[in-house]
Amino acid sequence: MAGTNSTRRPPKTDAANGLDAHAPVIILIEPQLGENIGMAARAMLNCGLSSMRLVKPVHPWPNEHAIKPSAGAQVVLDGITVHEDTAAAIGDLSRIYATTTRDRDMTKPVMTPRAAAADMRREITEGGRPGVIFGREAWGLNNDDVSLSDVLVSAPLNPGFSSLNLAQAVLLVGYEWLMASDQTPAIDNRLSADTRPADKAELIGMFEHLEAELDDCGFLRPPEKRPTMIRNIRNMFQRAGLTEQEVRTFRGVISGLVRTHERKRD
Amino acid sequence: MAGTNSTRRPPKTDAANGLDAHAPVIILIEPQLGENIGMAARAMLNCGLSSMRLVKPVHPWPNEHAIKPSAGAQVVLDGITVHEDTAAAIGDLSRIYATTTRDRDMTKPVMTPRAAAADMRREITEGGRPGVIFGREAWGLNNDDVSLSDVLVSAPLNPGFSSLNLAQAVLLVGYEWLMASDQTPAIDNRLSADTRPADKAELIGMFEHLEAELDDCGFLRPPEKRPTMIRNIRNMFQRAGLTEQEVRTFRGVISGLVRTHERKRD
Repeated sequence: MAGTNSTRRPPKTDAANGLDAHAPVIILIEPQLGENIGMAARAMLNCGLSSMRLVKPVHPWPNEHAIKPSAGAQVVLDGITVHEDTAAAIGDLSRIYATTTRDRDMTKPVMTPRAAAADMRREITEGGRPGVIFGREAWGLNNDDVSLSDVLVSAPLNPGFSSLNLAQAVLLVGYEWLMASDQTPAIDNRLSADTRPADKAELIGMFEHLEAELDDCGFLRPPEKRPTMIRNIRNMFQRAGLTEQEVRTFRGVISGLVRTHERKRD
Repeated sequence: MAGTNSTRRPPKTDAANGLDAHAPVIILIEPQLGENIGMAARAMLNCGLSSMRLVKPVHPWPNEHAIKPSAGAQVVLDGITVHEDTAAAIGDLSRIYATTTRDRDMTKPVMTPRAAAADMRREITEGGRPGVIFGREAWGLNNDDVSLSDVLVSAPLNPGFSSLNLAQAVLLVGYEWLMASDQTPAIDNRLSADTRPADKAELIGMFEHLEAELDDCGFLRPPEKRPTMIRNIRNMFQRAGLTEQEVRTFRGVISGLVRTHERKRD
């Protein structure tokens, strides 16, 4: 996944093509490092999110330190707006999710990122617009920011080491957002374009070829063990799920080994 | 989630307490930046993973640039081993997952990180040990490395911008690994420790208090609209899911407003 480009779907020239206009807004409160803003922008675009807002960033925005870590997510950086306080940044949004691992002793639902993603999609279906707030790198959100939010979002991480990097926290929220509507098959038993799964006649032909040669060289002895040995060998090849091409390749391997054997015997 | 510490579960003094001895091994092939190794180590420990191996890192290991980005994940850095090639790094492992977004035209199952996590847990149950390989930042895995793997892992990201930062890719794999066995309730309607949900008698008492005052000040007019107005107000407060403490607070609010009103009237 790192450092690669997808060619599985039709290539798109514009990274913004994958964006979802109804996606949640990501709001970073008092972010300290431009690098984290850039990495968060990259993570957002990875997940089809593009709308980022900053509340009182520690360094003035635009911040050149964000550019390289964004790895080309310029469409996100270009759209960033800066706000005086949290209330100003969330005024047009309908439901706010506060990311935290700290127990706030507030009467508020706490959701996993997965449950929060489903909840955000429901909110959008109902005509609302969700936003997710992330606190400053060193200490997270303060209680006043949390009191403006509807839902706490907490990832069930290693309880002894649960503090995520800011951009990593953004990635988890964005990833679950994307996965909540993803239709990709969980497991895709991909075949090369130039082949297909072997049919049973091809597979059995290969078995009989192999077994004939193994009879010939005396491997399948003593006779009373022959049926078990054959079953074990057949099971082993069944599990491999061979393609038609692989069956032909393996029949070549058998013939090759036999020829070597015969040559040695001469 | 960023920059915070969990106090929801009993505090643990040792980050390693949350580690899973049977967890998959993370293998970075030719990693270029010490910062990424450090961030990957942090992401691993966030997810309870501790075993990292490096194949031919571009800079010698140990690399001081990894320390600060690891944010204290020293237990992971200390355990890192360095290997000459991929085969040497995976020799003791039973099933290898290659992270990639590139179509390899190889006959191999392609799994989402979520499906791969379930597959890894099955592998461990059967007595095997899984490993996940990640390619170099700039170009990912080469085909020789992929040919040593059993499964391709590909996250269904924005097809126009699918290249994840190395540490972000490690986080997604680790996060799904953790979530595959997580028992955290998806939604926890947390209450403050010093209160409980209001019972219906308390809520109805509040309704009647409010409605008596609204009758008194002439708000619930004309009389033929009164039933509808009352139902709307009651529905609004029902949705808020008030606690016993909040019912008392709101009855105080009603009384306070009435007193102000009466004072003004004097």
